[in-house]
Amino acid sequence: MKDAPLSLSFNPAGIELDRRQGLSRQLYQALRVRVLDGRLASGTRLPASRDLAAALAISRNSVVRAYDQLYAEGFIEGRVGDGTYVAQLPQAPFPGSKTAPKAPPGTSLKGLDVPVLAAGQVARSGALARVENNHLPTPPSGPPRAFRVGVPAFDLFPFEVWAKLNAAFWRKPDLQQLCYGAPQGDARLRGMIAAYLRSSRGMQCTAEQIVVTSGAQQGISLCAQLLVEPGDGVAVENPGYRAAGHAFAVAGGRLHGIAVDSEGIDCSELARLGDCRLAYVTPSHQYPLGVVMSLARRLELLAWAERNQGWIVEDDYDGEYRYSGAPLAPLAALDRHGRVLYVGTFGKVAFPALRLGYLVLPPALVEAFAQRRAVDVRHSEVSTQAVMAEFMAAGHFQRHVRRMRRAALSRRNTLLANWPADIAGVGHLPSVAAGLHMTVMVDSLARERELIEAASSVDVEINGLSSYWLADSNNTPDQRAGLVLGFAAVPEEAISAALERLEKVWRRTR
Amino acid sequence: MKDAPLSLSFNPAGIELDRRQGLSRQLYQALRVRVLDGRLASGTRLPASRDLAAALAISRNSVVRAYDQLYAEGFIEGRVGDGTYVAQLPQAPFPGSKTAPKAPPGTSLKGLDVPVLAAGQVARSGALARVENNHLPTPPSGPPRAFRVGVPAFDLFPFEVWAKLNAAFWRKPDLQQLCYGAPQGDARLRGMIAAYLRSSRGMQCTAEQIVVTSGAQQGISLCAQLLVEPGDGVAVENPGYRAAGHAFAVAGGRLHGIAVDSEGIDCSELARLGDCRLAYVTPSHQYPLGVVMSLARRLELLAWAERNQGWIVEDDYDGEYRYSGAPLAPLAALDRHGRVLYVGTFGKVAFPALRLGYLVLPPALVEAFAQRRAVDVRHSEVSTQAVMAEFMAAGHFQRHVRRMRRAALSRRNTLLANWPADIAGVGHLPSVAAGLHMTVMVDSLARERELIEAASSVDVEINGLSSYWLADSNNTPDQRAGLVLGFAAVPEEAISAALERLEKVWRRTR
Repeated sequence: MKDAPLSLSFNPAGIELDRRQGLSRQLYQALRVRVLDGRLASGTRLPASRDLAAALAISRNSVVRAYDQLYAEGFIEGRVGDGTYVAQLPQAPFPGSKTAPKAPPGTSLKGLDVPVLAAGQVARSGALARVENNHLPTPPSGPPRAFRVGVPAFDLFPFEVWAKLNAAFWRKPDLQQLCYGAPQGDARLRGMIAAYLRSSRGMQCTAEQIVVTSGAQQGISLCAQLLVEPGDGVAVENPGYRAAGHAFAVAGGRLHGIAVDSEGIDCSELARLGDCRLAYVTPSHQYPLGVVMSLARRLELLAWAERNQGWIVEDDYDGEYRYSGAPLAPLAALDRHGRVLYVGTFGKVAFPALRLGYLVLPPALVEAFAQRRAVDVRHSEVSTQAVMAEFMAAGHFQRHVRRMRRAALSRRNTLLANWPADIAGVGHLPSVAAGLHMTVMVDSLARERELIEAASSVDVEINGLSSYWLADSNNTPDQRAGLVLGFAAVPEEAISAALERLEKVWRRTR
Repeated sequence: MKDAPLSLSFNPAGIELDRRQGLSRQLYQALRVRVLDGRLASGTRLPASRDLAAALAISRNSVVRAYDQLYAEGFIEGRVGDGTYVAQLPQAPFPGSKTAPKAPPGTSLKGLDVPVLAAGQVARSGALARVENNHLPTPPSGPPRAFRVGVPAFDLFPFEVWAKLNAAFWRKPDLQQLCYGAPQGDARLRGMIAAYLRSSRGMQCTAEQIVVTSGAQQGISLCAQLLVEPGDGVAVENPGYRAAGHAFAVAGGRLHGIAVDSEGIDCSELARLGDCRLAYVTPSHQYPLGVVMSLARRLELLAWAERNQGWIVEDDYDGEYRYSGAPLAPLAALDRHGRVLYVGTFGKVAFPALRLGYLVLPPALVEAFAQRRAVDVRHSEVSTQAVMAEFMAAGHFQRHVRRMRRAALSRRNTLLANWPADIAGVGHLPSVAAGLHMTVMVDSLARERELIEAASSVDVEINGLSSYWLADSNNTPDQRAGLVLGFAAVPEEAISAALERLEKVWRRTR
C-alpha cells in the first residue's frame, strides 16, 4: 500500500542531526525523548521510513534502524497494513520538558539529555548529611614536592621488580584465583604479614587474625562501621588524624577530642568522659605531633578499655620508621583481653596509591569483619595481594623497608641540618625519633597562615597544624598554630633547595 | 661492684627457651609477660645479666639484648650503682594469668600468647548483629566447573595483553599517580566508561557522573550506606540477588521482597507498600529468573520513584550479554528526574576477582558518593584503573566483549541442545535471550535438593533457586524450588560432558 503523507501531529522540524555522528542513533534518541516527554503522544502515527528519510535528508536505512530499535524497546508498534504508531504506555512520567529541572552549573553536557536534579531536591538522608559534614580535603595534586605530608620516599620503590612480579602473575594466572576470592584476603599474604609483625613488632599474631584491607583508611572505616553505633562517643587524639575522625563521624559517632601531652593521649581525660566506647590512637608516632606514647600510658589505655569493655583502634601508620631507641611494643602486643584492633598499611613503605593494608583483630572479631567486607566489596583485588605476597616471600619487602628507613633518616637529617634558624614566631625544632614528618609550633594562627602562604609562593608545601584540630577544641586558635612538614617525599637535594627558598622568603616576610 | 645472687623473688625456672629460635627475643617476651601479669612485681630486682645467662645456659649477650629492649620500652629501669629493677607501672591491667580468658578452639598458636576473647565476651553492637544475620555464603572453591553461576567465560580473557599493559604501567609509573588519587576514580577510565555506555547502552551520561568502584557489590553497598537510614523500607526482587539484599540489610534497611512476573518486578505491589525509599532491580536480565523488564514496567517503576522521591538502584550486572532482539534502554537512560543509580561491573566481562566496577549517578549525588568513598577507602587501586583505561582505549575491551558474547552464546546453545529431557519434576527449559545463567523450575523443594545432590555426586555444580528467596516469602517452600545454572564458566566440551553425567545420574535417581 501507499505510505500516507507526514501526519499533521508529527513534526520533524525540531529534530537536528549532527552528520558527523551516528544518524540512526541520534534519530532514535530524538524520537524516544519525544515519546517520553509527551510531545509524541500515544497513538500518533509515525511517517513511513522513506518519507521521514526524505524530510530529514538522511538514508532510509538510518530511519529503519532507528524504528527497529524503538520497536524492539516497545516505544512504537506496527498495526498490520496500517503503518507504525507510538505505543500505548503507562502514564508519561515526564509531563513536558518545561517542568524538567534545570541542570546545576557544570553538570550539563551540550547535546546530551543528562538526567539532572538540583542539589536542593535530594532528600538528605542522615548518611548524606554526615558525609557532607565529614569529608576529606582534596588530596594535593601534582608530583610530590617538599614537604608533602603522608608520602614516603617512594621514588626508591623497586618498580622494575614490581613490574616483573605483576607480569609473572598475569602471564600464567591460576583461574581459580580469578573467581571470587576470600573476603579475609589472600591466605599467603596474611601469613607473610603475620610473620613480619611477629619479627618486626613483637606482635604474637597469626594469619587467622589478619584481614586484608584496601589501605589503612579502609581498616579504620571498617572499625567505625562495625563497632560504632549512631550516638556512641568516640575518643580521638586532638590534634589528630582527621580522616580517621571523619570515618567515625560518618558512622554516627560523636567525636571527643582528647588532649595529647608528651606521653601521648591523656588517659585521665578519657576516663573522665565516661561515655566513650572506642578510642582511636597513633601510639608509635602521634599524628601529627610526633609524640611516642609512653609504656605507662599504653598500659593505662589498655586498662581503660578493659574496665569499660571499650575498643582501642591502634593506627601504626608509620611504625617502620624509627631512628633512635628500640621501638615500644604496640598496644596490640600488650593486649591480653582482645580489646585492640591494629591498623597497618603498605602505603608508607611502598606508595599510597597501592591501597593495601591490613587489620590485626582479636580472634572473636575476625569473622564479623570478614563478613562485613564481603558484603561491602567481596574482597580486595587479587593481583595486588598475590604480588605483595611474592614480594615479601622473595625478601624484597624486608630489603625495601631497610632502604626506606635509611632514606627517610637521611632526608630527615637534611631537613634538620638546613632548617632556617631564628625565624620570628617559629618554635624550636622537635627531636624527630620516628616517622615521616615533624611538627614545629608557631606563636599564632596569623603567623601560621603567613608562613604557609610565603612557602607556597616559592613552591614549598607545608600543612598548617590548625587543620588537625577538631572544630570545638577548647584551646585558643593561636594555641593550635604550627607547621607540619613531611620530610620523606622528595630527595635530599630537593629538600635543601626548598629550605634555601624558604629561608629567603621567610626572612623577607619579616 | 659484685653482682648480687639471684633474688628470691625472681625465679627463672618457668622460662623455657626454644634453642632453634631467637633466644633474646624469647627471653624478652617471657620477662615482659611476667611483668604484665604481675608475676614480676614492680620493684623486683632482676638478676645480673651474667647470672641469668648462666641460669638459663644461654649467652650473656642474649640476656643483655633482652634487657636492653625491656629497658627501652620502660618495663625495667636501672638504679645507679644498684642493678636493674622492674619499673613502677600503672596498675597491672592483667591481675594474674589464672583469670585470663581461654582461647577458643582454633585460635591459639602453640608457644605464642595470642590475645583472645571468647565470642560471648564481645559486646554485640547493632552493626555486628546485622552482619551476623546478613552475610554472604562462602564462595565455591576450586576452579570453575559446570554450572557455576556468576562467572563469565574468563578462560578467554587475553591475559597476555593484560600482563603487557600491567608491566608497561609499572615500568615507567607516573609518580604523581602513585600519591593519593581521586576518590571518584581515574579520569581517563571514567571517560572511557561513559563513552562505552553512550554507544552500547544509549545512556546519555558523562564522565562526571561516574564513580569507579571495587566491583558491583561495592556500588550496591555504597547506595545502601548513603541512601538507606536504619528502619527504611527497601524493595528487592523476590527471588533476587541476596548479596544486594544483605548490603541493604546491613545498612539497617527493612527488606520487602516484591514478586517478579513475566514483565519483571510487580510495580503495583511496590506501590501498595507505601514505605519504601529505594528499590533494587535487575531489569536487563532478572537475577535469577532471567526475565527482561518490559518497557511499560520500566516506566511504571520510574513513575513510582518520581512520585515518592524514591531511588532506583539498577544493577546491570550482565547487560553485555544479549542474544536476540535489541536491548531495552536501561532505566538510567529513561530517567529524566535523577532517581536512578546505575551499577555496572567489569567482573562479568573480564573476571570476577578484578573487583572493578562503576556507578553512574544523578549529578546531584556524585559529590556525596565520591566523598563517602574517600572516607571509606580513599580511592581504588591505581594500576587496575589505568590498565583498564588503556585496555579500552586500545580497543581490546570492545573486541573482548564481542568475543565473550559469542562464547557465552555458544555455551548457552550447548546447554540447551544437550539438556536432559523429561526428567521427572523438572519444568520446561526457559528461553534464554540474555545473560550468563538460566533457571529451570522444579516441582518441590525435596526434588530440588535431590537433583542438586545427585549433580554434586558427579562433580556438577547447581544452585538451588530456593536460596534466592527472602526468608519470609509468602509462597510455599515448594513454589520456591528450581535449578539455577550458569552456562558460561567452562568450555563447550566440559558442558556436554557434565550434561552426560547429569543425565545418567538423574535418570538413575528416578
